[in-house]
Amino acid sequence: MFKILKKDGRAKRGEFLTVHGTVQTPVFMNVGTSAAIKGAVSTEDLKVIGTQIELSNTYHLHVRPGDEVVKKMGGLHKFMNWDRPILTDSGGFQVFSLASLRKIKEEGVSFNSHIDGRKIFMGPEESMQIQSNLGSTIAMAFDECPSSVAEKDYIKKSVDRTTRWLERCITKMKELNAKDDTINKEQLLFGINQGGIYEDIRIEHAKRIREFDLPGYAIGGLAVGEEHSEMYRILDAVVPELPADKPVYLMGVGTPENILEAVDRGVDFFDCVYPSRNGRHGHAYTSFGKINLLNAKYETDDRPIEEGCGCPVCKNHSRAYIRHLLKAGEMLGMRFMVTHNLYFYNHLMEEIRDAIEEGRFQEFKKRKIEEFHAGE
Amino acid sequence: MFKILKKDGRAKRGEFLTVHGTVQTPVFMNVGTSAAIKGAVSTEDLKVIGTQIELSNTYHLHVRPGDEVVKKMGGLHKFMNWDRPILTDSGGFQVFSLASLRKIKEEGVSFNSHIDGRKIFMGPEESMQIQSNLGSTIAMAFDECPSSVAEKDYIKKSVDRTTRWLERCITKMKELNAKDDTINKEQLLFGINQGGIYEDIRIEHAKRIREFDLPGYAIGGLAVGEEHSEMYRILDAVVPELPADKPVYLMGVGTPENILEAVDRGVDFFDCVYPSRNGRHGHAYTSFGKINLLNAKYETDDRPIEEGCGCPVCKNHSRAYIRHLLKAGEMLGMRFMVTHNLYFYNHLMEEIRDAIEEGRFQEFKKRKIEEFHAGE
Repeated sequence: MFKILKKDGRAKRGEFLTVHGTVQTPVFMNVGTSAAIKGAVSTEDLKVIGTQIELSNTYHLHVRPGDEVVKKMGGLHKFMNWDRPILTDSGGFQVFSLASLRKIKEEGVSFNSHIDGRKIFMGPEESMQIQSNLGSTIAMAFDECPSSVAEKDYIKKSVDRTTRWLERCITKMKELNAKDDTINKEQLLFGINQGGIYEDIRIEHAKRIREFDLPGYAIGGLAVGEEHSEMYRILDAVVPELPADKPVYLMGVGTPENILEAVDRGVDFFDCVYPSRNGRHGHAYTSFGKINLLNAKYETDDRPIEEGCGCPVCKNHSRAYIRHLLKAGEMLGMRFMVTHNLYFYNHLMEEIRDAIEEGRFQEFKKRKIEEFHAGE
Repeated sequence: MFKILKKDGRAKRGEFLTVHGTVQTPVFMNVGTSAAIKGAVSTEDLKVIGTQIELSNTYHLHVRPGDEVVKKMGGLHKFMNWDRPILTDSGGFQVFSLASLRKIKEEGVSFNSHIDGRKIFMGPEESMQIQSNLGSTIAMAFDECPSSVAEKDYIKKSVDRTTRWLERCITKMKELNAKDDTINKEQLLFGINQGGIYEDIRIEHAKRIREFDLPGYAIGGLAVGEEHSEMYRILDAVVPELPADKPVYLMGVGTPENILEAVDRGVDFFDCVYPSRNGRHGHAYTSFGKINLLNAKYETDDRPIEEGCGCPVCKNHSRAYIRHLLKAGEMLGMRFMVTHNLYFYNHLMEEIRDAIEEGRFQEFKKRKIEEFHAGE
């Protein structure tokens, strides 16, 4: 259930109640693709850095270790030792971005696994079954993710199929939640809005999927190469067409600035690989922008990544030490970077929530974006 | 200063007092080659798993980030954020095992860096200067590490040179410790006994180096491929020839069984890459022997690595989860393995200390070795 505690313009401060606890929104979900955050960050660490909800990938877990194995182990929460909410994606995005020899039919998609080339079929029912085996808190509907450069005609047909697939997801999830041996009988299903960069298709699709009265709605297929201004234009058009009393999740977004702009347009849930991926490549997020710790100027810099940062890395270690670890190829360097970056994102969301609560979100957003661009 | 609290046969329970705190012996030093434990284990983690003393490698740190950089950062303790004792090796072993195009002369060794091929010269004075820049608690003398299959004649000559090099190390360290800008003015120097598998050379060398009245003595050049029984024979011969009131450090050893046998022969300090290296390859140490978590039989094993183990990994995670992480190439798997294995070694030493204190070391050793061989 979603409770809106406060509105500040279109920005919402809410609480999303689940069987695995309450999520304070707006929230950034920390990405743990294969039931682990890349960069050796443990679920125990996530609690220290303020992670509220973790996101894992259905496709990856289906391929390895297998969702049947996870189910046997009591579900993803028990497997990972994480008692807070987990969202699983539907596998759709990975099927369309990672797998090869893909064939799309009305039933679903046939493709070859990116790990061992094994032939796999995934449709709405298969995706729901896998996510039910994983026992996540929130499951995502299985959708088609067409190329962002696809013709409008193709997008239109694809969106229609995504709607038909959503109906099948809803039916299948109801059936699975009613089964005796289901891990999480209260698994929630979020629908996904598609339509590329076409406002008319997006809006029509939003109107159709809102009729299903789902506990939450996502906006998919953005942040795939289009200009940021295009993404904001679509958000301006679509968010008002989604139910006002349900959370809105903008998939795969994004930079701190993207998040501030999207919160300002009514988005509540986010996820993105940037903090972990950029961290592993030596890029640290700070309130004065990203810094590249591989840069020679940090060789003897004994300051933390950011003065005053409350993360366990900044409390204990210097830029010079972390730079050395990264240069020497020590995993510990990556762990420190990812820990700091996830804390940065989690903390930014906390600041955003405070700003909305106190009715000063506009001023906060403006100041943060200026600071990001200002540099050290 | 070394205080022997209790003797049980030749096994000693002692305390080694340093400017960075007291080390309870027998002790296993945890290896952090490049100022970090491989496998993303942080110095904060080391405190949780009971690490008393960390070991770093002079050669690696000289090459990267450079000992001058570490000195500028206030020394290795400050650089790593570790306030307990650190031992640095002399660089000799790495020069003889890693570097290429090596030329040995009376002055020292010329070689090419294994990182960038850069020409480097290292002799006793250079090794002491680097270790002084690092500011470790205990520095090791620069010795020649001849091949274990070298002719006896060569070993004899090599050991003589190692003795001459030790004298130069002592002179240089005195000079460095007296300098105003030295990081650790009370840096200690341990001498190293060499002599291959020849008892007579080993004993003669031990007699010569004990005259220097150093705060500790190491036994080098063992565990390089000879039979374990050969190593024990050398220990039986050499340990009694080293000062009874100084700690004895057996370099690079070894398995839990090796450690029990060496403690039984009077050894106080150990170091070895086994727990971290084997951990990264999926091998976990338990009181019932090593287990390979990559084995298919652990796929759905929800037990911890070892029931009753007090390490943070066994308290929180299952064999099945760790196996999945290792199979999926997630760094977190390696971190968990190394954490558990180092805890296992640290805890074994604690049990050894208790057994000596209580005068039941023989019985303890016999039981532990039987258990290691028994399997699960």
